[in-house]
Amino acid sequence: MKQLASLAGVLFLAGCQSACMRSQAESPPAGLLEGIASGRTRVVALSHALNSKTPHWPGEGNRPFKYEYFTSLERGHVLEGHFNMDEHTGTHFDAPNHFVAGQLSVDKIPAARMFVPVIVIDVRSKTAGNADYLLTAADVDNREKAHGRVPSNAMVMMYTGWETRWNDFARYKNADRKGVLHFPGFSPEATKFLVAQRNIAGLGIDALSIDYGKSEDFPSHLISHGSGKLNLENVANLGDLPPV
Amino acid sequence: MKQLASLAGVLFLAGCQSACMRSQAESPPAGLLEGIASGRTRVVALSHALNSKTPHWPGEGNRPFKYEYFTSLERGHVLEGHFNMDEHTGTHFDAPNHFVAGQLSVDKIPAARMFVPVIVIDVRSKTAGNADYLLTAADVDNREKAHGRVPSNAMVMMYTGWETRWNDFARYKNADRKGVLHFPGFSPEATKFLVAQRNIAGLGIDALSIDYGKSEDFPSHLISHGSGKLNLENVANLGDLPPV
Repeated sequence: MKQLASLAGVLFLAGCQSACMRSQAESPPAGLLEGIASGRTRVVALSHALNSKTPHWPGEGNRPFKYEYFTSLERGHVLEGHFNMDEHTGTHFDAPNHFVAGQLSVDKIPAARMFVPVIVIDVRSKTAGNADYLLTAADVDNREKAHGRVPSNAMVMMYTGWETRWNDFARYKNADRKGVLHFPGFSPEATKFLVAQRNIAGLGIDALSIDYGKSEDFPSHLISHGSGKLNLENVANLGDLPPV
Repeated sequence: MKQLASLAGVLFLAGCQSACMRSQAESPPAGLLEGIASGRTRVVALSHALNSKTPHWPGEGNRPFKYEYFTSLERGHVLEGHFNMDEHTGTHFDAPNHFVAGQLSVDKIPAARMFVPVIVIDVRSKTAGNADYLLTAADVDNREKAHGRVPSNAMVMMYTGWETRWNDFARYKNADRKGVLHFPGFSPEATKFLVAQRNIAGLGIDALSIDYGKSEDFPSHLISHGSGKLNLENVANLGDLPPV
């Protein structure tokens, strides 16, 4: 199996930066992971649950998520089912071999690469009136002026607000009469800048693809995967992440 | 979708306890998560990759993992496939509603519960000569004498050595002529003790089930899920975890 969607496990840990610093004089020093048990660290799940109406890529050969029980507590001790899905349905990451030959498949990616800082670029004011909005290099620049330089190895999340359409597949893919999709994405310039100048871990978005719906040649996929980066699509709960 | 296998995301973070403690006077305090980028924290993936020969529960209605490509880089820009599987195939956790009505399904489990301490009880010397070995309360007691009390909210891993059979489904399930399976598991007394007296997060094992192969009534599932605990099955790389 060369390419497998990550069905679970897209999570974010948010700590109480300043409060923790203050309390360290009195209590043992501890990190974000260590703070989960006490509730000092908050865990935000960034994955959608799956069901038969979950949006999938509307291409040739793609098909909807399907789940069915084959036994039940009444019939045979246990509740269990099987499921059938495209590997890029739901909240998932794209491994670099999704678009670029010779790059890593998901089973070859070291587990340590799954733990990275996250930053969110909120472009909801831009996408509200323009479903075809492309995040620009200027958006990254403005974000850096407000919140500081994008850290090395960060997952850069584009917060488009498309998540509010998640439970309505037609509005989420937003196809016109000719079948052309309309949802926002990363511009190739912004992707190039983030990959080459900021050494990011990858791109993430709360929509079907990091390239916008109208794209025919998927330049942001080719640029990011060409450099071995991972991308996250259909991300949930970006609004629950802190600004920095 | 009520029950979904976790295909990825079973990971263990091992830090350099004493060395980190020593270095804290000189460097900023940091936890296990913060130590991943520098390599100070080691990440161990506890999941098997899936393929068509991956062991599955050999019951009525179960079927093997199946993956097929429906497009390729040559044919249509991208490499992509779909897959078809039982939800409890591969390395996965059992949500409590797997065996007990009214308990939580996987989509209802708070994400913070996915981050817990892990302890490993190595019973390979017992299972080597006895495929039907049941981990006893005495094994837990011996482990506590050697390594200290099982901490609250720990995932207790039974290291049977069955992982060495993973790539040979027949030897992994180890069915006799009558179709009875033979692999080790947790005894109901040990499970009762760990759940009631140690408030564990759940049980884990490097075999097909936390109940042994011969079991017909799955008492350890009923006890642990009855108390809302999660169980991990077909865990990989337990030998890479530190003793404590």
